[in-house]
Amino acid sequence: MRIDRLETFSDGVFAIAITLLALDLPRPQGDDVWHALAHSWESYASFLISFLTIGIIWLNHHALFDRVARADRTLQMLNVLLLLWVSIIPWPTGLVADHLSGDGASAATAVYCTVFVGMAVTFSAVWHYARAAGHLAELTPAQVAHLGQRNSLGIGFYVGAVAVAFVVPALSLGICFVLGLYYLLPDRADRLV
Amino acid sequence: MRIDRLETFSDGVFAIAITLLALDLPRPQGDDVWHALAHSWESYASFLISFLTIGIIWLNHHALFDRVARADRTLQMLNVLLLLWVSIIPWPTGLVADHLSGDGASAATAVYCTVFVGMAVTFSAVWHYARAAGHLAELTPAQVAHLGQRNSLGIGFYVGAVAVAFVVPALSLGICFVLGLYYLLPDRADRLV
Amino acid sequence: MRIDRLETFSDGVFAIAITLLALDLPRPQGDDVWHALAHSWESYASFLISFLTIGIIWLNHHALFDRVARADRTLQMLNVLLLLWVSIIPWPTGLVADHLSGDGASAATAVYCTVFVGMAVTFSAVWHYARAAGHLAELTPAQVAHLGQRNSLGIGFYVGAVAVAFVVPALSLGICFVLGLYYLLPDRADRLV
Amino acid sequence: MRIDRLETFSDGVFAIAITLLALDLPRPQGDDVWHALAHSWESYASFLISFLTIGIIWLNHHALFDRVARADRTLQMLNVLLLLWVSIIPWPTGLVADHLSGDGASAATAVYCTVFVGMAVTFSAVWHYARAAGHLAELTPAQVAHLGQRNSLGIGFYVGAVAVAFVVPALSLGICFVLGLYYLLPDRADRLV
Repeated sequence: MRIDRLETFSDGVFAIAITLLALDLPRPQGDDVWHALAHSWESYASFLISFLTIGIIWLNHHALFDRVARADRTLQMLNVLLLLWVSIIPWPTGLVADHLSGDGASAATAVYCTVFVGMAVTFSAVWHYARAAGHLAELTPAQVAHLGQRNSLGIGFYVGAVAVAFVVPALSLGICFVLGLYYLLPDRADRLV
Repeated sequence: MRIDRLETFSDGVFAIAITLLALDLPRPQGDDVWHALAHSWESYASFLISFLTIGIIWLNHHALFDRVARADRTLQMLNVLLLLWVSIIPWPTGLVADHLSGDGASAATAVYCTVFVGMAVTFSAVWHYARAAGHLAELTPAQVAHLGQRNSLGIGFYVGAVAVAFVVPALSLGICFVLGLYYLLPDRADRLV
Repeated sequence: MRIDRLETFSDGVFAIAITLLALDLPRPQGDDVWHALAHSWESYASFLISFLTIGIIWLNHHALFDRVARADRTLQMLNVLLLLWVSIIPWPTGLVADHLSGDGASAATAVYCTVFVGMAVTFSAVWHYARAAGHLAELTPAQVAHLGQRNSLGIGFYVGAVAVAFVVPALSLGICFVLGLYYLLPDRADRLV
Repeated sequence: MRIDRLETFSDGVFAIAITLLALDLPRPQGDDVWHALAHSWESYASFLISFLTIGIIWLNHHALFDRVARADRTLQMLNVLLLLWVSIIPWPTGLVADHLSGDGASAATAVYCTVFVGMAVTFSAVWHYARAAGHLAELTPAQVAHLGQRNSLGIGFYVGAVAVAFVVPALSLGICFVLGLYYLLPDRADRLV
């Protein structure tokens, strides 16, 4: 099957998920707007991390499928699964905003990081399947090794963030943020996939 | 008329409907987040079935229109009707989440399965119209028969699920889930349309 | 400027507006789901009319821009104005659902039909501008006359529906519904623009 | 990387953000619908300014990327940052609607104009990067100077609107509205980027 509709559909889901994030930004109701804004910092922090993460996963999705000419049914299905993780990101983002300052902080941030684990694992599965199907043949073995390593590293750190959530919830958010930046900053691999 | 805008518009509706599903996932409000999450299992179950179903109907829509070069006004109208069913799926999904554990379970699951009947019937109508218009001429008679049979079978089982809803509501959801898997798993027909 | 992004952007707005309509469908809260569903018939009726209308205006938008090769800034701006009307349709749709059985029925249906007037007038403006810019040169004078007449007729009837809203609110909805069907049914003009 | 997915993704975010604006339009609840509509004029005013602004930034985004053949990772990232500002516009729009008549009017309009500052600064950064990368080579030095001046002017006036918000909140909205019109009206520069 042609790749263009997979891309249009995926771009649609990415665009909607990233835009819906802003729907959950709290609107201060009292008269002291400045104070109310400062009070809701958890919402703005989790919004920014989620926006950054969806933006980066889109960039990498884009870079990956630029090399894929045609998608078989299995690749389509893996991609739909990836979109499942992307589309639910607004949900744990709201969860963190609701609970970061309360007793549910560990549970909320653990769920949040778990969604990122699911997304990273599925992205890695898409990547491995595309490589096995010969779509990434133009990469050198060293590049393939580097990219595989980067994917595994990301999964490992996200799993670590889940564990950290049970001890220092806010720190687990920090790890997700730094991971986002790591994938964002241009390096050797960023010019590949 | 060209087919590309029909595809862009359809991809948009599919992408939005599938992403809006997550908007209705309940966010636990109390302090015991884990317990609250477990308590809302109906929401997550109906979310997953709906996501799976929209994803699969998109895959099949994609596979069908890959063979269609130009769409006349009747095909456009049938497609808009199909999108009507797709776009309202978040609504019965929320209905099931609200009522599966209460007295309204039969009504909610019956409505839910009825929407799937409507979608399956309309998809079948699109398919028959496309075939009658000669778009599927490259398929062998045996393949056409197989695909027609599969469409009819799906409609039959979804109608059965509506009936089951009045006896064992949760079972009707199970039927919808299994039907989703049936359409998802690669078989001979999946490589056709 | 190229036409493709105007089409992608417009398809996006149409797709979102038509899908958001379903967000406002009321979910019955009590145990008697069937009764609650029947009770909310205004919501379902206004949903259907709005869905039908957006679907048809999309079809006609599609048919019109199929003939347009490049869009200058004025045409782009007229198109953004048309999308303004499309994007707010969910709002008067909800207004009608809220007020059709109450004292605000006249006001709600008058606002509803006024939005349709605005949409019809703007569509007509887009059409006239495209014709004046020479995009519809391949049409015969008789066809141009017929289509211009149809546009004017639609505007006239929608204005009439606004007036009727102050006397028999439900009837004004019926007029909008019939107008939708009129534009939907294939006739000579439908094969043109 | 190819430019087409950047455009599809951006068009999606623009389309969703501009359509979501209407979700926040208040639906009058009492029986006196006309009075309630008039009472919520702040919502309609801020809706119109936001719609106009997103529509115009889309037009300019369109005009700019029409000249860009391929986007490197830095340009992609700057574009994601621009979409961040676009996607949150519904949030300050609602803030203004909630607070324009109350004690929080200064804070709300200051936040509103600040988002426009952020958007104008980021658009200017995208423009400068595209120019530095040689994408706008066909423009004459005079045209480049004119466009750079227009960008700087816009940023300056939006910053001024933030300051005005602390003195006469409604006036700062007026400045944003006039700036929108200024960018909308066809002039020499509008035919460029």
